[in-house]
Amino acid sequence: MDVPQAEPVIRAVTDAMVAGDTGYDTPTAYAEAFAPFALERFGWTVDVAAARTVPDVMTGIVEVIRLCTDPGDAVVINPPVYPPFTQFLEHADRRVVPVPLRGARLDLAALEEAFATATAGGRRAAYLLCHPHNPTGTVHTVDELRAVGELARAAGVAVVADEVHAPLVLDGTFVPAATVIPEAIALHSASKAFNLAALRAAVAVPGTAAVDRLARMSDVVADGVMHLATLAHAAAYRECGAWLDTLLEDLRTNRSLLQRLLAEQVTSARWEPGSGTYFAWIDLRQLGDDPAGTLLREARLAVNPGTTFGPEGAGFVRLNFAASTATITEAVRRMSGVLHG
Amino acid sequence: MDVPQAEPVIRAVTDAMVAGDTGYDTPTAYAEAFAPFALERFGWTVDVAAARTVPDVMTGIVEVIRLCTDPGDAVVINPPVYPPFTQFLEHADRRVVPVPLRGARLDLAALEEAFATATAGGRRAAYLLCHPHNPTGTVHTVDELRAVGELARAAGVAVVADEVHAPLVLDGTFVPAATVIPEAIALHSASKAFNLAALRAAVAVPGTAAVDRLARMSDVVADGVMHLATLAHAAAYRECGAWLDTLLEDLRTNRSLLQRLLAEQVTSARWEPGSGTYFAWIDLRQLGDDPAGTLLREARLAVNPGTTFGPEGAGFVRLNFAASTATITEAVRRMSGVLHG
Ligand SMILES: Cc1ncc(COP(=O)(O)O)c(C=O)c1O
Ligand SMILES: Cc1ncc(COP(=O)(O)O)c(C=O)c1O
Repeated sequence: MDVPQAEPVIRAVTDAMVAGDTGYDTPTAYAEAFAPFALERFGWTVDVAAARTVPDVMTGIVEVIRLCTDPGDAVVINPPVYPPFTQFLEHADRRVVPVPLRGARLDLAALEEAFATATAGGRRAAYLLCHPHNPTGTVHTVDELRAVGELARAAGVAVVADEVHAPLVLDGTFVPAATVIPEAIALHSASKAFNLAALRAAVAVPGTAAVDRLARMSDVVADGVMHLATLAHAAAYRECGAWLDTLLEDLRTNRSLLQRLLAEQVTSARWEPGSGTYFAWIDLRQLGDDPAGTLLREARLAVNPGTTFGPEGAGFVRLNFAASTATITEAVRRMSGVLHG
Repeated sequence: MDVPQAEPVIRAVTDAMVAGDTGYDTPTAYAEAFAPFALERFGWTVDVAAARTVPDVMTGIVEVIRLCTDPGDAVVINPPVYPPFTQFLEHADRRVVPVPLRGARLDLAALEEAFATATAGGRRAAYLLCHPHNPTGTVHTVDELRAVGELARAAGVAVVADEVHAPLVLDGTFVPAATVIPEAIALHSASKAFNLAALRAAVAVPGTAAVDRLARMSDVVADGVMHLATLAHAAAYRECGAWLDTLLEDLRTNRSLLQRLLAEQVTSARWEPGSGTYFAWIDLRQLGDDPAGTLLREARLAVNPGTTFGPEGAGFVRLNFAASTATITEAVRRMSGVLHG
């Protein structure tokens, strides 16, 4: 995001450096800071003793997946989706099973079929849900989550929910997967909402029926957690509620602006804004399979190529609207120049 | 270490936070900062393009070991040694083969035998060298490294050198393993010498004959690198040479002080100071197998129990002398009270 750091986060990091508080982390510090935030924002009571700090979201996902599956087992994902899902799962010797979104929503019938195939012969399998979904910004509904829970339970598939974008829900409220699917384990982090990719940490939170499973995570995982990141994220969760509210307001404004400008200037673009994240997943198939390449070459406009999120992304681009009004306006102007110039 | 942070490191971190430079890292930044440091301190010309940034030393070790071995394969280590070696290797499904030190030095005959057994039937195997060695502070000599290289080459065993304590050599100079064993891959980091456990990053550096092997490391490994850690470590390598020299001088003074105080007040303790690190590995077998437990109970003195470094550590403790004169003096006084009081 193109935003300045929140003051309390800067202060937490600077104070720790000056005080020489640069040693090792304590196991429950992250969850203790996250719990009140989760309660206030999501109405979710997090069991601090059952949660586990992890170095970052992707490491946490891989380690949870290792608890639920063996090498060679299937992990179902929903492309177009955050590209590292595939890369990290393959690096962990899991078999990635794509069940594409239908439009921007989960395809429950296809999930049911994939779960059955994945667990055939008694093999273990997992489902990696992206909630909210990157790149579409889709926030899954309670009904969808409930249906996912039933399908997964019936097939014996473990549900892992990547909820790193949860604080960035712009419409309505965010429903944590583990509150609807007690067998699920969710990953949370302040790194996206508070712009802390440079200083990452995350927490794995089990649903009430997944406490024992998560308890089996090896202690070595927490070794990778950086104390300074925990301090920064704790300051974000504890002291930056107003900062986040302002950010969300700005993101809503930016989303409306982008929608209006696209409607006015890029009439061949199709975009259904999602309810979460700062991503716009824009259909530019009119430009062919690689609109991002064309925009970069012809207008020096850098957006994320849709195909990096899966072959389903051909003809799409991902644009980040956590930017200034001027940047958004100029981006649309350049897009318009290429498409209608 | 009980030392204040170096000013340039504080500044690098604070400036990045204030500037909002909290996004993703660039691939060669770490190696670019490390290379001039390695040249000046160790006379080692590091190939920046061949090096790879990794999230921390242990993650780097595991990922390099994954390049050289398969699940179930043997990895030789030299206990007593840094406890996470065993924990991380087992978590990565490797079989840990202990070849204990002889006194404080490598046991070359035992290594030769272990290498032969590990590679029997054509299996792959690796050797994880700790250089300097934690907890003994042993700095391996050129002759030892050369012998290790020959044994490993003859048996087809991959050499991985954990050199995180390299900047903390107090006597003579540090000889990087990869300069003597071209097939080796070494891990370096500023996190120990500059007290940055809270903000970790590391770099894997291949010997001239290991460049291709390291090039096969997956790109997902670098995803875990924290940009702010790279900035902090780069400031340490580039701007904190004088700070490090002062630290080394202080550590030499502390080592002499500890040696004198132990000789005067704890005559039953045995300690052969190593040439590197800030650890004293003290033989207190007079107190039985768990001297650390006794010292904690009877004198409220907290030292690391020797057995955490392997069963060979029974009767030993590890004491960190990167502390104030007052703390070291008080520690020895309490030890003396328990042993001779
Ligand atoms: C859906 C999703 N998961 C995970 C991440 C990355 O999390 P981390 O860097 O903590 O692994 C991102 C970052 O953009 C993301 O969008
Ligand atoms: C020998 C050795 N290796 C590795 C580490 C840890 O490195 P990191 O925290 O970067 O994984 C330490 C820390 O004390 C160590 O002594």
